[in-house]
Amino acid sequence: MMMHYSQQKIFEMEYYQRTAFINSLSGFKSLNLVGTTNSKGISNLAIFNSVMHIGAHPPLMGLVTRPDSVERHTLANIRESSSYTINHVCKDIFVQAHQTSARYDKEISEFDAVGLTPKFKSNFYAPFVQESKVQIALRLQEIILIRINQTYLVIGEIVEVYFPQDALLNDGVLDIELCNTICGSSLNGYHETHLIERLKYAKP
Amino acid sequence: MMMHYSQQKIFEMEYYQRTAFINSLSGFKSLNLVGTTNSKGISNLAIFNSVMHIGAHPPLMGLVTRPDSVERHTLANIRESSSYTINHVCKDIFVQAHQTSARYDKEISEFDAVGLTPKFKSNFYAPFVQESKVQIALRLQEIILIRINQTYLVIGEIVEVYFPQDALLNDGVLDIELCNTICGSSLNGYHETHLIERLKYAKP
Repeated sequence: MMMHYSQQKIFEMEYYQRTAFINSLSGFKSLNLVGTTNSKGISNLAIFNSVMHIGAHPPLMGLVTRPDSVERHTLANIRESSSYTINHVCKDIFVQAHQTSARYDKEISEFDAVGLTPKFKSNFYAPFVQESKVQIALRLQEIILIRINQTYLVIGEIVEVYFPQDALLNDGVLDIELCNTICGSSLNGYHETHLIERLKYAKP
Repeated sequence: MMMHYSQQKIFEMEYYQRTAFINSLSGFKSLNLVGTTNSKGISNLAIFNSVMHIGAHPPLMGLVTRPDSVERHTLANIRESSSYTINHVCKDIFVQAHQTSARYDKEISEFDAVGLTPKFKSNFYAPFVQESKVQIALRLQEIILIRINQTYLVIGEIVEVYFPQDALLNDGVLDIELCNTICGSSLNGYHETHLIERLKYAKP
């Protein structure tokens, strides 16, 4: 049976239930770990479920963050260094990835706290996550304020990509299922995927 | 074996391969059908893989669109009417959903062209997709230009939600897997999901 929730009904929901409910509505979410380093050389790692494709020409990715959340160290470090990495959450590290969302002090590296390995390469300032199969380095391009709720859309240009050779298909698609990439729902759901089909470019 | 693509290597990729590759990098994507109606009363339906959560208090969702894409009718209709619906792509309608991405003339309703049913309810100006199990009505709040590649972030406030009663869990999470919601990869992959685990709020 279909339920109907009006805006009034949503406003009447208990705070955390409403957070969980509204977070369910956009559908499945990408899950990524964002790696940064602050000016004292301390690394930070935070899980994000808001990483998105912005464009391929030039190659751009975005993520949404709020100034007062646990990811605030990430935002501060991106502003400071203009450098960050995006690393797919793969099936074998989702518990550690989730644990990065705890409110650790900024003197503590979440890499150490949760047991993931920071990997420095390509002479890039921010660390990659060694356990992740898809690792991307980005250079900050623009931080856009979303006025209505004081969040930020952070846009970066892709400068390096590491991925398993056998996951690159002939048409340029990276088979992220083969990379063990998983997806999320609401704020707590972790899901593996099963390919139904790849469809051809649609014509009328 | 891990491959490394530098920015130079990405720039050298063939155009469509690069589009497919870069579109793979953010991870899995939400898949939604956006329903609108223009001032002549013709309905429009377009698949989007860029719908995202923006905030729960107030309840906001965003989507990224470009002015020159096949979704341009959607953007024009949202500007005109301030009203649109977001409907999850469920497993049994993914072929029809994909087909809405074809470049139909604006006098043609994609509902008719692909065989989905426009459903008007709650006295809302834009049509819902009857075959979708999660249907959301939104009122436009803000259109933000992303300068770097001339795309737009369209933000709307959630005003109505329809969903299956048995999918609402005690903690407010909507079990979208139970709603047959699927997810996407790159521009052509359609995937069903399997819940691994729901984790508790993380503490240090």
